[in-house]
Amino acid sequence: MTRRGKLKIKNMIKGINISTTNCGIKYKNRDDLLLITFDDEANVAGVFTQSSMPAAPVTWCKKIIDKGVARALIVNAGNANAFTGQDGFDVVEKTVTKVAQELGCKKEEVFVSSTGVIGELLNAKLIEDVIAQMVKNPDANFDKASQAIMTTDTKPKLIKRSCNIGNVEVNLIGFAKGSGMIAPNMATMLGYIFTDANISSSTMQTLLKESTEESFNSITVDSDQSTNDTVLFFATKTAGNHQITDSHSPELADFKEALNEISLGLAKMIVIDGEGAKKLIEVEVDGARTKQQAKEVAFSIANSPLVKTAIAGCDPNWGRIVMAIGKSCSETNPEKIVVRIGDHVLTKGGAKHPDYVEKAVHEYLKNSVVKISANIGLGGASAIVWTCDLNEEYIKINKDYRS
Amino acid sequence: MTRRGKLKIKNMIKGINISTTNCGIKYKNRDDLLLITFDDEANVAGVFTQSSMPAAPVTWCKKIIDKGVARALIVNAGNANAFTGQDGFDVVEKTVTKVAQELGCKKEEVFVSSTGVIGELLNAKLIEDVIAQMVKNPDANFDKASQAIMTTDTKPKLIKRSCNIGNVEVNLIGFAKGSGMIAPNMATMLGYIFTDANISSSTMQTLLKESTEESFNSITVDSDQSTNDTVLFFATKTAGNHQITDSHSPELADFKEALNEISLGLAKMIVIDGEGAKKLIEVEVDGARTKQQAKEVAFSIANSPLVKTAIAGCDPNWGRIVMAIGKSCSETNPEKIVVRIGDHVLTKGGAKHPDYVEKAVHEYLKNSVVKISANIGLGGASAIVWTCDLNEEYIKINKDYRS
Repeated sequence: MTRRGKLKIKNMIKGINISTTNCGIKYKNRDDLLLITFDDEANVAGVFTQSSMPAAPVTWCKKIIDKGVARALIVNAGNANAFTGQDGFDVVEKTVTKVAQELGCKKEEVFVSSTGVIGELLNAKLIEDVIAQMVKNPDANFDKASQAIMTTDTKPKLIKRSCNIGNVEVNLIGFAKGSGMIAPNMATMLGYIFTDANISSSTMQTLLKESTEESFNSITVDSDQSTNDTVLFFATKTAGNHQITDSHSPELADFKEALNEISLGLAKMIVIDGEGAKKLIEVEVDGARTKQQAKEVAFSIANSPLVKTAIAGCDPNWGRIVMAIGKSCSETNPEKIVVRIGDHVLTKGGAKHPDYVEKAVHEYLKNSVVKISANIGLGGASAIVWTCDLNEEYIKINKDYRS
Repeated sequence: MTRRGKLKIKNMIKGINISTTNCGIKYKNRDDLLLITFDDEANVAGVFTQSSMPAAPVTWCKKIIDKGVARALIVNAGNANAFTGQDGFDVVEKTVTKVAQELGCKKEEVFVSSTGVIGELLNAKLIEDVIAQMVKNPDANFDKASQAIMTTDTKPKLIKRSCNIGNVEVNLIGFAKGSGMIAPNMATMLGYIFTDANISSSTMQTLLKESTEESFNSITVDSDQSTNDTVLFFATKTAGNHQITDSHSPELADFKEALNEISLGLAKMIVIDGEGAKKLIEVEVDGARTKQQAKEVAFSIANSPLVKTAIAGCDPNWGRIVMAIGKSCSETNPEKIVVRIGDHVLTKGGAKHPDYVEKAVHEYLKNSVVKISANIGLGGASAIVWTCDLNEEYIKINKDYRS
């Protein structure tokens, strides 16, 4: 989406330098290492996998995130540096030490991500050997950055937005990796969002958490959670607005909207990526007692292989949706449940709606974006999550013996 | 497994009459209705789906189970009578009323199950019209019974055992339906176990719950839970042993073993049934703090589509097992985790085991029964669950538009 106007994107945010290269970790004929440096200290916020066995670079980022200051981000593709023991931590240590040395900053200002296969030791020397050159010659752009971090992604994922804080125009750029149905070596989700706005890191943390909840944390492909999932949010403070230190400031209204558009846009791009996924499925649950209940029921529908295969086959087998509600909800009132596919109302009074016409719903399900909604009739809370359909290609690609 | 010696099986348990027929609910050229009657009051125990939206027949069985007395069991295949509103309850009422009338018993002594598509109204008349004839002419056997309740099952599932209570020989016969990977209209699991032993219904309930926990509740195919899952356990009390009223009685040792063999045997038959499933996967987790934690981690591994597809492809992608442990366990000590596939030790000290030879594990994974084990190094509790591999056929069959 940004193949044109590369220079424009690069220059949208002042004070950022981007370098990509192939350092030989796994891939040939493509970049597999990304280094982004900031001219001055950037503010930073981050959210990470909830796995109790995070990869070594995630453990590092979690340790330094509270300081809220970044001078660099380094990301490699092709090896997750996860479940690699002390050796894995040593790789991170060597990497951040080398970057800090070249930049003249503290190593606690260097953020690291890795994505790829789990359990294989990452060769630190491959990375150390190219860092000096990457720092010296930052000739890449966000387009190249979004490509260098891909693993099984079929498309790079990059979104930009501009908006105002007060009367100052500020910019946001986000890119991400993570492939929907095709995840031979873990569907690790990495996302990075950059802005030139001047916002305190604690305020950024609040904004990022809120935005992630409705986007990256509202998508599911196969219910598996990576050891490496990471979203980082950097602010160069170069736009010229006075610093915002309150996440409730009315001046942030447009900014929040732009941030949410980027987060949700990238999240949806992750879901629909991959040859296996042919449809984006939006699942909305309302009438729940709490937001959490709404999300649990929505995820129960979105994670059900039976629902996902039915959608793949354009089969309005709505009994599977009812099943998914019943298995996730400790209380239900079947008589009040209203299930819709698109605008078609499928249920009434705890049974099939008398006006239900299966053929019409079958036709609707041929669309590439499909909406399922369920009012569960218990309260006023709602949630939306996104997933994709489940096709043979998912199996084919994930069962292939790695050669 | 019991194609021979039908008469023997039929007569193993005195006081049971079996009848099967085609009443025209869905299938042609096969039986779709089963009626089992008891000459005298049988003791009964049952366990049911935890779905908050159980099907009408499940709601009925849950209501009457505490009385502990059964005179009949009637099961139809082809329609689940689930999410069918008041009409669905009316069908159950008409069915039990007709059976009770023909048998001269209370309707609260008539147990009902249905399996098939959700949300379609079941025509009660089709069933009512054949009940009198079925009661009069019980010319079927357990073999036929196990076939009449099949939906997408490719094989009937029937197991028999004999054992002693004191010095009296007693018999157990169990049959079940539920198909592994092939579940176009819900992988409903129905199981029925019969014995001639004289055991009080409350003791039977305890035995059944214990046995189910380690068998039917320890299998997973696709993490979906049916609205109709039911296991019923009947005792005709015709064997001649003195009544057992204490589940801890040492006289029950052999009987418990036989019951567990039947439950676990049927559960495994469900998992491996279906063209899609090619391997039985046993997942054992030990070193957990509690039994519940062990089971949660084991199910996290067994439900992971990435693990299941890797096994399908004989790919020793053990990082996915580590991922599944990390996502299910709120605390972990990676250094203590020992993951095994078969007898091959894959991890040591939070990283890949130095002696790990991928090719050897790849060869092992070609077996039709595969064992994964993980010691998570936190405590002394353990659990075993069973699942199957995930192949393209699962998708193909489940996405086919119902014709």
